[in-house]
Amino acid sequence: MRNTIGTVFCVTTFGESHGAGVGAVIDGCPANLPLQADLIQMQLDRRRPGQSSVTTRREEADRVEILSGVEQGITLGSPIALLVRNQDMRPGDYARLRDIPRPSHADFTYRTKYGVSAGSGGGRSSARETVGRVAAGAVAQHLLQVRHSIEVVAWVSMIGGVTAAPPDPLLVTRAAVDANPVRCPDAEAARRMQELVESAGAEGDSVGGIVTCVCRGVPVGWGEPVFGKANARLAGAMMSIPAAKGFDVGSGFAAAAMRGSAHNDPFILKGGHLGTATNRSGGIQGGITNGEPMVFRVAFKPTATIRKEQQTVDFNGNPVVLGVQGRHDPCVLPRAVPVVEAMAALVLADLMLLGETAG
Amino acid sequence: MRNTIGTVFCVTTFGESHGAGVGAVIDGCPANLPLQADLIQMQLDRRRPGQSSVTTRREEADRVEILSGVEQGITLGSPIALLVRNQDMRPGDYARLRDIPRPSHADFTYRTKYGVSAGSGGGRSSARETVGRVAAGAVAQHLLQVRHSIEVVAWVSMIGGVTAAPPDPLLVTRAAVDANPVRCPDAEAARRMQELVESAGAEGDSVGGIVTCVCRGVPVGWGEPVFGKANARLAGAMMSIPAAKGFDVGSGFAAAAMRGSAHNDPFILKGGHLGTATNRSGGIQGGITNGEPMVFRVAFKPTATIRKEQQTVDFNGNPVVLGVQGRHDPCVLPRAVPVVEAMAALVLADLMLLGETAG
Amino acid sequence: MRNTIGTVFCVTTFGESHGAGVGAVIDGCPANLPLQADLIQMQLDRRRPGQSSVTTRREEADRVEILSGVEQGITLGSPIALLVRNQDMRPGDYARLRDIPRPSHADFTYRTKYGVSAGSGGGRSSARETVGRVAAGAVAQHLLQVRHSIEVVAWVSMIGGVTAAPPDPLLVTRAAVDANPVRCPDAEAARRMQELVESAGAEGDSVGGIVTCVCRGVPVGWGEPVFGKANARLAGAMMSIPAAKGFDVGSGFAAAAMRGSAHNDPFILKGGHLGTATNRSGGIQGGITNGEPMVFRVAFKPTATIRKEQQTVDFNGNPVVLGVQGRHDPCVLPRAVPVVEAMAALVLADLMLLGETAG
Amino acid sequence: MRNTIGTVFCVTTFGESHGAGVGAVIDGCPANLPLQADLIQMQLDRRRPGQSSVTTRREEADRVEILSGVEQGITLGSPIALLVRNQDMRPGDYARLRDIPRPSHADFTYRTKYGVSAGSGGGRSSARETVGRVAAGAVAQHLLQVRHSIEVVAWVSMIGGVTAAPPDPLLVTRAAVDANPVRCPDAEAARRMQELVESAGAEGDSVGGIVTCVCRGVPVGWGEPVFGKANARLAGAMMSIPAAKGFDVGSGFAAAAMRGSAHNDPFILKGGHLGTATNRSGGIQGGITNGEPMVFRVAFKPTATIRKEQQTVDFNGNPVVLGVQGRHDPCVLPRAVPVVEAMAALVLADLMLLGETAG
Repeated sequence: MRNTIGTVFCVTTFGESHGAGVGAVIDGCPANLPLQADLIQMQLDRRRPGQSSVTTRREEADRVEILSGVEQGITLGSPIALLVRNQDMRPGDYARLRDIPRPSHADFTYRTKYGVSAGSGGGRSSARETVGRVAAGAVAQHLLQVRHSIEVVAWVSMIGGVTAAPPDPLLVTRAAVDANPVRCPDAEAARRMQELVESAGAEGDSVGGIVTCVCRGVPVGWGEPVFGKANARLAGAMMSIPAAKGFDVGSGFAAAAMRGSAHNDPFILKGGHLGTATNRSGGIQGGITNGEPMVFRVAFKPTATIRKEQQTVDFNGNPVVLGVQGRHDPCVLPRAVPVVEAMAALVLADLMLLGETAG
Repeated sequence: MRNTIGTVFCVTTFGESHGAGVGAVIDGCPANLPLQADLIQMQLDRRRPGQSSVTTRREEADRVEILSGVEQGITLGSPIALLVRNQDMRPGDYARLRDIPRPSHADFTYRTKYGVSAGSGGGRSSARETVGRVAAGAVAQHLLQVRHSIEVVAWVSMIGGVTAAPPDPLLVTRAAVDANPVRCPDAEAARRMQELVESAGAEGDSVGGIVTCVCRGVPVGWGEPVFGKANARLAGAMMSIPAAKGFDVGSGFAAAAMRGSAHNDPFILKGGHLGTATNRSGGIQGGITNGEPMVFRVAFKPTATIRKEQQTVDFNGNPVVLGVQGRHDPCVLPRAVPVVEAMAALVLADLMLLGETAG
Repeated sequence: MRNTIGTVFCVTTFGESHGAGVGAVIDGCPANLPLQADLIQMQLDRRRPGQSSVTTRREEADRVEILSGVEQGITLGSPIALLVRNQDMRPGDYARLRDIPRPSHADFTYRTKYGVSAGSGGGRSSARETVGRVAAGAVAQHLLQVRHSIEVVAWVSMIGGVTAAPPDPLLVTRAAVDANPVRCPDAEAARRMQELVESAGAEGDSVGGIVTCVCRGVPVGWGEPVFGKANARLAGAMMSIPAAKGFDVGSGFAAAAMRGSAHNDPFILKGGHLGTATNRSGGIQGGITNGEPMVFRVAFKPTATIRKEQQTVDFNGNPVVLGVQGRHDPCVLPRAVPVVEAMAALVLADLMLLGETAG
Repeated sequence: MRNTIGTVFCVTTFGESHGAGVGAVIDGCPANLPLQADLIQMQLDRRRPGQSSVTTRREEADRVEILSGVEQGITLGSPIALLVRNQDMRPGDYARLRDIPRPSHADFTYRTKYGVSAGSGGGRSSARETVGRVAAGAVAQHLLQVRHSIEVVAWVSMIGGVTAAPPDPLLVTRAAVDANPVRCPDAEAARRMQELVESAGAEGDSVGGIVTCVCRGVPVGWGEPVFGKANARLAGAMMSIPAAKGFDVGSGFAAAAMRGSAHNDPFILKGGHLGTATNRSGGIQGGITNGEPMVFRVAFKPTATIRKEQQTVDFNGNPVVLGVQGRHDPCVLPRAVPVVEAMAALVLADLMLLGETAG
């Protein structure tokens, strides 16, 4: 089971939804980086359940403990182990699911592959697995910020067909994103998204959506020309997030309908160095960052676990009507925002360190 | 520079567009697989330039030589080195490009990162790099076919806004795909796509498009729950193909506008085992294959290198009008089909072998 | 910093000597293995300080907590995170060492490389780092035992020039090894070794020695012919143990003085399958296990940290006389025994799982 | 089958003894390194068979061709593929060996594991596999030399019990090493070694020996504190060389008989920076290079393939007397010298590039 991502900045996540805890080990973070737990806690708080009317009511304080790798607020260059203990476990909620695989969930494939059902809450396929990603990603973001003043900002750009007016990718901030519970910087769209999520939730249903992310300040030259393309690394990282269904970068799928003369980004002089007049490349050309903001999107499906009754079959093939009780997000998008940011930061931190070996 | 893909079935590609040759080394192919060069040649012929009116006129026979790993038509379990020598090199075509980075091409980022321009043809950022992928992918496909009767079929589903009627993913064949030069199994759409490509080419312009791919016969249980999700591995592989801009699986981006009750794939009994009534999951649930056909899409931008004049600047920032002479595809889609198939096979072969270690 | 070992059975260790704790994450352990903490505790107890007159007096209960990957005594196939909290930390003991690099210790190189001194106790270069190895190794041994009835037994075969009579590698047990504090199954040699260690300790000095290890029951066919040779993997693992200075397998260094006709192991029939009459190969031929017991040795230097005064210089080059206070083993050999066993098991578990992909 | 070594400077070797050719692909060599084929050829010539009376009479010119990664004598940062075609193949020599596994050779384990016998010459277990190592190692040495003026010099320090007087590790040169056919810089010992090899060869027998290697000019700070220790990486690399039986570094196995007060290397001032008065550490402390010359030894067994008759059994267990015809080195040591140097350079080049990511 691959639970490690990265070549030089390597992160291994661990933990089940209803076990002792979840966490991550970061191997390869450079020494001498000032690091406090609150930097990590901040992003965990954005990911944590129970934040608002649009998220699950599971109650988890999600306090992070730094077990190693940091002494007197300074990284040692050694592995940084991060632990978040689980608190609000309710294995009982999942008793019936031992017999019935939830449609479009990992229950069926997981059980068939491993021969175990991870008891409760889906084990590693639970969204709770992303706690480790967010914790490690916060360290990566901090490293990127300290070294290169890089900013990573993601937001909800679409929910269930309601599309936000795109913010200026050069200016959008996390504060603007966090101004409403759906994490969409377009207030009017956010209001309609929230209504949509709440009404879906009230019906025991769920909705999908799209997160857009910008990474500002990435220098020219990160990423590699072949299998290690920055876009390939990002795609792999984003599609590893639970419920992700699609990824595109810059012009993305829209490029498929365009002509080269309209799609190409002409080079221009920007304050003494080369830049591009437009950014359909999304900050990456030939797999290597070109100094423009990196912009990409991740599509998420509607949460598979719903209260609404579904006609399906149990593991033995007997028809059943399933309505899953328990505490589930009617829409993962708001809480996916810090996860997307974390995965972007993990990829960038690795590309940064790898890039130092290329010259 | 990461030129290796895979954990157990590992492929390293090598070679520049205008050097001695291109190729790949496969490390981890099991022993005792019958393997003839013509199996590889067949896919190389589908990728090779100069096939038709919609591809570049560069002439390359692209004959593959098996340098190692095979004796008397049987794999030895040792590395299989594959070499295709370059023939029709015209470094002169690229002389002017030493001074002017092509818009939306890798010239700028590659030169900035490596301090070299790979002389001619873009070096590793050339589409010629995909020869090694296709050669290695053909071996992977053969292994999948022999072991599990898996079929991998990709086709052009859209070019420049012209969308094909979707074929039955259970039935579409490579023969049907190859029935026309654009490799679109919808004959009527294919005709219009061809016109579009030819007219764009005549104007010195290019067009983008989408390749859709189905993998039939993949058993339940390949892929891993976290970073090694089958969809994440596929996404990374596909987005590493030159000119790829987007990837989605199953319902893909469309899922973002749907409700869970409409999106979930109910389980049903299919001939004694569990299957799903619909396939919005695209054959993957929780990152693990579920026995249904894997279906995914890859969006490609229009070729960056065009004859049509573009206003841009040279490496020194001086304004120039650039119209690139040389032999370039007005549309990469038809030749991208075997590349997408190859990358899918490389990912699947690796997941297959990794899966054997999980039980 | 590479803190991960293994390709399929991957272990990442973490933790500093004087931080919150030490531990390991095992990624790739198959699902459905019965696993109790006491199996791990047993080996930790053999490694733990304060066991006897020949080990350090640092007091650590070294209780292991399984944080993830196991539910109701069964592995889930997900990462197994193991945590041992530190208890008896005395950072004060190390205050003076901030200025003076201990001779033949990692102080100088670690500080020069990372620019930090890991405060106290040497950080990751402390022998305490091996807690994570032993914990993870216990899981690997258990997996090997359950799957193939493999037994891994190491013992002290030499200390400070006192050499034990070699036990029968087919019969020697951990019980016999643990019959005395130096872990040497030759009681008479053990007595002399213990005297040597105690007298060195009394003088504030230390002694080196050799651990020999046998792995019984390893089937034919583990390991790979080139860089993944079983002996290469073992060598890398053993030489990564703190204080290891040498490694050899089977006839080892003695082979260098021999003739082929005397060194070769003739094949014979053993109960219906091929075996060898002698075992100078140490159970490995061409890098691949041959079904005979694997036998290898690891040489350890005398502990670098000694009370006895040494003439050296401080970080600024000023001459100083250094006598290190604190609690140090006068001889690491007895406690190295479970560490050697653990590393052998980690390598074998990985080779076992990798081997399943080769056929 | 792991045929790749390295994390950033990655080398994959390929090729069978009696196939089309052997070679290597180097992925991760930095761009802009001047590189000519003759630099590689020089080391291949030192490894090549048929050099003298003490080596096999197989005739191979072993001319290397650079297939990629270099343009106009400059590396591009892309994979450097190196090919050496086989010439003097005599598969017939090996016909009888299909039925009889050579004692202490890889025939038995290889056939059992892979179910194929690699036809002739042992496939990947042939010493011919080391051609790729030496070719790639020559590039690594060149990189180390250009970047840090590092010199890697190995020599034969013992053959069959005849031990050379140790040369000054600071001064010994390849020219001195190559002054005689056994590659031992002690002329008198070399004469006796040569006699020993020739007489063993005349009797159809073989002899083992030891290669010692020094790496001068390695800066402080390469290698990592845990599994990536410089000594661990070296050990793994050296023990992957065919016929290697043991490895030790600095004081090595002798350390096991010493006391700490006698073994520790005191620090002293050396021209303004810290060095050590003695070098029992072999240039590595805590797994990290300390600026002193790296010194290590590799023990080789006598060649397993001998003409002298041996009593053994065939694959069916029938007793046979085997005397292997063909062309085999009576002693691998002289030709192992460039292989040891190559492996040392591969490890160091990787540690150098990895080290650039640690700060």
